[in-house]
Amino acid sequence: MTNQLIENKSLEKVLEVVKEKEIDRVFLVACGGSSALMYSSKYILDRDSTTMTTEVYSSNEFIYRNPATLNKNSLVILCSHLGKTPETTEAAKFAKSKGALTVSFTYIDDSPLAKESDLVIGYEYGPGIDPAESRNILIIQLTLGLLKVKESSKKYDKLVASLPNLKAVCDKAIEYYAQDALDFADKYKDEKMIYTMASGSNYGVAYTFAICILMEMQWINSHAIHAGEFFHGPFEILDKDTPFILLLGLDETRYMEERALKFTKEYGEKLIILDAKDLDFKGIDKEIRGEIASVVLLYVLRAFSRKLADVRNHPLEKRRYMFKVPY
Amino acid sequence: MTNQLIENKSLEKVLEVVKEKEIDRVFLVACGGSSALMYSSKYILDRDSTTMTTEVYSSNEFIYRNPATLNKNSLVILCSHLGKTPETTEAAKFAKSKGALTVSFTYIDDSPLAKESDLVIGYEYGPGIDPAESRNILIIQLTLGLLKVKESSKKYDKLVASLPNLKAVCDKAIEYYAQDALDFADKYKDEKMIYTMASGSNYGVAYTFAICILMEMQWINSHAIHAGEFFHGPFEILDKDTPFILLLGLDETRYMEERALKFTKEYGEKLIILDAKDLDFKGIDKEIRGEIASVVLLYVLRAFSRKLADVRNHPLEKRRYMFKVPY
Repeated sequence: MTNQLIENKSLEKVLEVVKEKEIDRVFLVACGGSSALMYSSKYILDRDSTTMTTEVYSSNEFIYRNPATLNKNSLVILCSHLGKTPETTEAAKFAKSKGALTVSFTYIDDSPLAKESDLVIGYEYGPGIDPAESRNILIIQLTLGLLKVKESSKKYDKLVASLPNLKAVCDKAIEYYAQDALDFADKYKDEKMIYTMASGSNYGVAYTFAICILMEMQWINSHAIHAGEFFHGPFEILDKDTPFILLLGLDETRYMEERALKFTKEYGEKLIILDAKDLDFKGIDKEIRGEIASVVLLYVLRAFSRKLADVRNHPLEKRRYMFKVPY
Repeated sequence: MTNQLIENKSLEKVLEVVKEKEIDRVFLVACGGSSALMYSSKYILDRDSTTMTTEVYSSNEFIYRNPATLNKNSLVILCSHLGKTPETTEAAKFAKSKGALTVSFTYIDDSPLAKESDLVIGYEYGPGIDPAESRNILIIQLTLGLLKVKESSKKYDKLVASLPNLKAVCDKAIEYYAQDALDFADKYKDEKMIYTMASGSNYGVAYTFAICILMEMQWINSHAIHAGEFFHGPFEILDKDTPFILLLGLDETRYMEERALKFTKEYGEKLIILDAKDLDFKGIDKEIRGEIASVVLLYVLRAFSRKLADVRNHPLEKRRYMFKVPY
């Protein structure tokens, strides 16, 4: 694989390259929020692929764990928004040294990560963009595309046909929860600890809200609890004073999220419930709503985070360590 | 596979059965603390196996996710101490329905889980037992045994030769940290939030201490942070008032734990540091110390939890929901 392909930012073009390569392992490698957005891709591949097995690793865990099955038949998908997360760039180098094909999502064309990757997929970013052009959707599109070129899955085409309608779905979802977002900010602005909870393809959204929004951007203690694990330890922490954000998606693990909701409703009082079933997914093919719901929930939660930051007078951009001190 | 094998609680006998079966996937399936103790097995297989790929799933996530690669070439290892965790028993049934071989760790011979499993491995439990007979070590022994019968790994024999010395190592480790355990209990007894942190094969120990000891048994908020992920969000929560328990093991990911330690020492003050490098591993083969260190750290942390429970006058057995209300 030569570096000339770096210039190629078309997802369809990436799929052409992938199609010609033997792949039995997919490694999803990134850090923090960039890692969290890959969880739904693992969910999709776990459920649907009979020929490829999938791992999600934080970049340095990937390097130091040094998986014995990482080799020339591996596809390594990486992500770093600015493309300068050192451990993710190192992970791309490491993967290439093992003969793997590396495909990176990054916003910056000539970033260190882009330079170390065989193929790069760009995306749109910032307020007002079409979610269909965001990395959150493009990685799902790549995943379903992989399943199309390798295992003739029909979901890729269904996704592509649905994408023109996604922005309206997200906009309506944010509107539907607008008052809840205000209430959330007002009611929970002084909380020291807010838990999040989800399962399946939505767990990554719970994780990113816990570690990136609450801990990183608001300095509020948090922990993303898996809705199934909840009943095997964490639920003992629940009382009427402990805030929980519960996500209910549309995938096959929804039973776990509903079970956790029932219990938290019985013994808790500070509950913020986001349920994709209450949202209007018009124009999104029914067969891919489970895959898409996590992204819609993330858009809604981002609106929640903006209200929270406003009311707390703690801008989402405020940091004490990140990019400010050596680490 | 007939149920007559249920009676067989010898690990060596299980390996004889496993040796004759084609296995390309290993699923480690359990809930809560029983799941956490399997993380080190995934670490070992990820690093060392070229022919088997491995997943850790909470039991209901396993069932509802319904992995497409679960089939007659799968080994599903389950664990439930009393063998009556409903979702783990269901997971065993589900795995068998897909043709997989099921091997369960359970303390109760005729438990529901035992009855639904092809093979059962028993273990010792309770204060004063030899750690070499605990499920924490036996699952590592099964994992290394799997690598021996399938890929001629030498580590199994090194482990077996080392096991007679493990109790002394654990006892000395607890003794080494005895004063720290008292100090920890005294200093942090009124904390509302205590984070834990580790990487690699030690992450499961951080996870079990967070969700089972702190949240479940002490009703203290917690969250097990991955030492690599720490720098991509969670570290912004760190200040001089936030307690962190840092685990440093002996596996290949130790760099991440050292990096997290360096940073928390610079910006934090409430640090509890357990470093396997400070312990005496005499009699444990050098090549398997990375695998064993997590279990030794767990034994030390259990001693910490007993002191904490004493000082807080909150017995480790105290529950408000578990086994007391429907869920």
